[in-house]
Amino acid sequence: MLRTHTCGELNLTNTGIEVTLCGWVQRSRDMGGLTFIDLRDRYGITQLVFNMQGNAVLCEEARGLGREFVIAAYGKVAERSNKNPKMPTGDIEILVDRIEILNSSKIPPFTIEDNTDGGEELRMKYRYLDLRRNIIRKNLELRHKLAIETRNYLNLQGFIEIETPVMIKSTPEGARDFVVPSRMNQGQFYALPQSPQTFKQLLMVAGFDRYFQLVKCFRDEDLRADRQPEFTQIDCEMSFVTQEDILDTFEGLTRQLFKSVLGVETGVFPRMTYDDAMKNYGSDKPDIRFGMTFTDITDLSKGKGLRVFDNAEIIVCITAKGCSEYSRKQLDELTDWVKRPQIGASGLIYVKYGNDGIIKSSIDKFFTPDDLSAILNRSDAEPGDLILILAGKKTATQKALGELRQEMGNRLNLRRPGEFKPLWVTGFPLLEWDEETKRFYAMHHPFTSPVPGDIPLLDTDPGKVRANAYDLVINGVEIGGGSIRIHNKDLQKKMFTVLGFSDELAQEQFGFLMNAFEFGAPPHGGIAFGFDRLCTIFGGGDSIRDFIAFPKNNSGRDVMIDTPARISEEQLKELGIKLV
Amino acid sequence: MLRTHTCGELNLTNTGIEVTLCGWVQRSRDMGGLTFIDLRDRYGITQLVFNMQGNAVLCEEARGLGREFVIAAYGKVAERSNKNPKMPTGDIEILVDRIEILNSSKIPPFTIEDNTDGGEELRMKYRYLDLRRNIIRKNLELRHKLAIETRNYLNLQGFIEIETPVMIKSTPEGARDFVVPSRMNQGQFYALPQSPQTFKQLLMVAGFDRYFQLVKCFRDEDLRADRQPEFTQIDCEMSFVTQEDILDTFEGLTRQLFKSVLGVETGVFPRMTYDDAMKNYGSDKPDIRFGMTFTDITDLSKGKGLRVFDNAEIIVCITAKGCSEYSRKQLDELTDWVKRPQIGASGLIYVKYGNDGIIKSSIDKFFTPDDLSAILNRSDAEPGDLILILAGKKTATQKALGELRQEMGNRLNLRRPGEFKPLWVTGFPLLEWDEETKRFYAMHHPFTSPVPGDIPLLDTDPGKVRANAYDLVINGVEIGGGSIRIHNKDLQKKMFTVLGFSDELAQEQFGFLMNAFEFGAPPHGGIAFGFDRLCTIFGGGDSIRDFIAFPKNNSGRDVMIDTPARISEEQLKELGIKLV
Repeated sequence: MLRTHTCGELNLTNTGIEVTLCGWVQRSRDMGGLTFIDLRDRYGITQLVFNMQGNAVLCEEARGLGREFVIAAYGKVAERSNKNPKMPTGDIEILVDRIEILNSSKIPPFTIEDNTDGGEELRMKYRYLDLRRNIIRKNLELRHKLAIETRNYLNLQGFIEIETPVMIKSTPEGARDFVVPSRMNQGQFYALPQSPQTFKQLLMVAGFDRYFQLVKCFRDEDLRADRQPEFTQIDCEMSFVTQEDILDTFEGLTRQLFKSVLGVETGVFPRMTYDDAMKNYGSDKPDIRFGMTFTDITDLSKGKGLRVFDNAEIIVCITAKGCSEYSRKQLDELTDWVKRPQIGASGLIYVKYGNDGIIKSSIDKFFTPDDLSAILNRSDAEPGDLILILAGKKTATQKALGELRQEMGNRLNLRRPGEFKPLWVTGFPLLEWDEETKRFYAMHHPFTSPVPGDIPLLDTDPGKVRANAYDLVINGVEIGGGSIRIHNKDLQKKMFTVLGFSDELAQEQFGFLMNAFEFGAPPHGGIAFGFDRLCTIFGGGDSIRDFIAFPKNNSGRDVMIDTPARISEEQLKELGIKLV
Repeated sequence: MLRTHTCGELNLTNTGIEVTLCGWVQRSRDMGGLTFIDLRDRYGITQLVFNMQGNAVLCEEARGLGREFVIAAYGKVAERSNKNPKMPTGDIEILVDRIEILNSSKIPPFTIEDNTDGGEELRMKYRYLDLRRNIIRKNLELRHKLAIETRNYLNLQGFIEIETPVMIKSTPEGARDFVVPSRMNQGQFYALPQSPQTFKQLLMVAGFDRYFQLVKCFRDEDLRADRQPEFTQIDCEMSFVTQEDILDTFEGLTRQLFKSVLGVETGVFPRMTYDDAMKNYGSDKPDIRFGMTFTDITDLSKGKGLRVFDNAEIIVCITAKGCSEYSRKQLDELTDWVKRPQIGASGLIYVKYGNDGIIKSSIDKFFTPDDLSAILNRSDAEPGDLILILAGKKTATQKALGELRQEMGNRLNLRRPGEFKPLWVTGFPLLEWDEETKRFYAMHHPFTSPVPGDIPLLDTDPGKVRANAYDLVINGVEIGGGSIRIHNKDLQKKMFTVLGFSDELAQEQFGFLMNAFEFGAPPHGGIAFGFDRLCTIFGGGDSIRDFIAFPKNNSGRDVMIDTPARISEEQLKELGIKLV
């Protein structure tokens, strides 16, 4: 090694020894006859000292070093007179004899500090400099730690990591595939996997019993802040299991990760049905770090002559503790907020329960004080609280109030960072009806098993069929989901029929899986966690991009290497394709 | 779990307990009033017993079970009267009370046995059945074990696993890229990485100090037996290191893998220069499980009037111990073997040193007994040995004799399975001249650093420049290679110039890397192991396909899922491409 020690390990026990450190110049300070340089590497920062009186030439040389120069410094460890208890190396400094410039540096386009002056675009263009910042480096160290803990935990549980192929086959169900033209089979394409779903099921048919993989997956979707065209999953599958076994195993994994990586004990994860989640939180991924659950006041609110209530399918409210003093302006602003197209409510109704016990509302004309009291009563409101009411179509109103609940949670600082509340959501519907295309879609995917008792409903009322499916939610973020799978060819065929596949298309696309089911497929099920999201939750970050070494931007571009890019005519010709 | 135990764990200590096992019917035997079924899962095989006298209905049911049916068997553990000491569960059997058929199975198209009757094509089409065979399952278990040991070793050495992107940019150097058309940036393409080379170097610029990744890489090459379009690398990079540090670190990893996975102590790996490897073995990846090194007899053999020798640049031989009794027919056959186009020798000359001390050769007309004795003497031949001589152009003759040496090693059973002889090869040339395109190519890749003292030769005699590069060879197979990298922009630019890149092309393709070198790039180097090959060597297999769960065939097809395949017109249109 060009160094004897890293910049993070020296302390008073090393006083007096000769060392060589290598690293980057974080900053330098001239203090009269002394020059101090903070030398940085992945492991920490160590202070170098140069003395003008002792060695003027060397000191001048040190003064000539710019930010981010890479140097080797040779010298002796000495106790500092002015100790810095905040730094692990803060008790010592290096009295430098000699330096060697290993590489110079131009002035970086932004500061290499936690609070950098670089904007997102600039940081991404110079991602190799952005990654030098502590805050980003720690995110990737956390990611590594989560990955290695996950692998070791699953290994001890008897899971085998098996690599599934990246170049597979395009399927019409689900999101859009990225495809790869084949040179050796012109006119034909591979597709990049959206998940290794069918392969992991085949591994169960093959008898591997317990499979996992940390695996890159790909979706050609229009991107949002928390989406990347390539992302990583913790992908798992088990044979001869019930839903309970899978929840136990992956609750065990998640608790172990919280404990070993963050030192947090989460306790047993509560469970909630999809119906209860929608009814009480207006979301299938509720943040249960705070209450503010819904109160249904449909029966108390109809027939009072207020048309918006009388025409509503459902009237529900939340109780914002201590918000009775909200001003007119604040309430107008909240009303505008719920009326935005993303939320889609037609209006917001409030009831203030003043600290003085006086009740005021936006519906005083229609509701008697007793009527309002009944609402406050059912909502468990206390003096000082504010009731916020939405009314309309059932699901849309629940979802809108769910959004408002999250927003009020933010405004009231109820979504505490550093607090982690995992939750299993179970009992999902198997199918979702799409009004636009007038067909059912699989809520999870077409391989999800219905609850056995509901199978007859597939013929009579498919929308009512419940799935043997489950999601893991942490702090309102869906971390993963899975299901018990179909392992019977006939049921799988029926499922494709319900989803509108012709027999031919089902056979062409998934024939290999249905054939496999004819050769002794075991009962099986599994789960997949979004690893980028899991890292982001663990790291307390806002954007998954800060937890990916080289992310792409919202147009799917890597601005550092400038891709996607044109390829040569010769390449196109070899592949047998042309640009339109 | 649907089972209480696996099929691999019950023994005499469990006698008398009630158990439920799940698995596949491996085979069944009717023995008078008793029926035996071997029930198989990933963990082993357990014998089930059904007694016609005790329960005729159940016994009939058991007799109806076909091969590969999936069942749950409920019963009691009992000591076997007829123990099988070869099976971990061979002391017990299950007296079955009840069975449940979890899934039936058609008759498999080949037998699920180590020695199957299925050919390669059929096995690949039904890979999920092929994977049920012990021999293949164990290969994938070995692969998992090697992966987890590799990760834990490197983690303990301070390496961080960092995922680099799969959708990157096409570059003209090296093999052909697979490309991915971009929908959001029409007319532009991503490329799949042939290796994460530039990204790992950027991670060093970013200060990550020690990086590794088990990572899928892609090459659109015409395939051979040991090539796959997608393959896996153990990819590593370190900063502030010399070549010695990298060899130490990865020799440590390899020795640890041998020890922990195979229980084999390999000792310190010998090192050999490229020049010595070519001179003594005619290969840059010699199998050193056996000797049979080359003897140069050019000076002893010229001027005897034999034109093939007199016109040769080099005359070299190997000594095949104990082969002096080779018949005319055997020698003719060996001569034909070296004259095949793959080997390319013009002929083969032999000298037999008989057990009786009599010397016979194919060049008796030109060589006196003393001349022949001098050759035998220099070759350390003993009575009973056979000398095989090739002559011609230097490199071609060395390579041809290297092939002959390997072949003789095979024929004499000197390449012993289960014996492992790793070797570092160092001191490679930086560049290779290609006669066809009349230009230099990088022997490793364009980022490899020249030996510092040889840098001036880049201007005067590039072919003479040695690289700071190294390969790990095990048993004659190149497992991996690496180098100290260039970390200086000007040297990198010069390297591209020597390789025939225009400044514009170098900037367009690798500008991001050269720019990064201007912001404090540390000295760094690394290595990559071919993980599929490593697994194959460890597992003692012939084909990497047996160590990959879902491999592709020689046409790049996955015959199980039938890909590559046509995609829809709509997909093509969205991507802005047409078929030619």
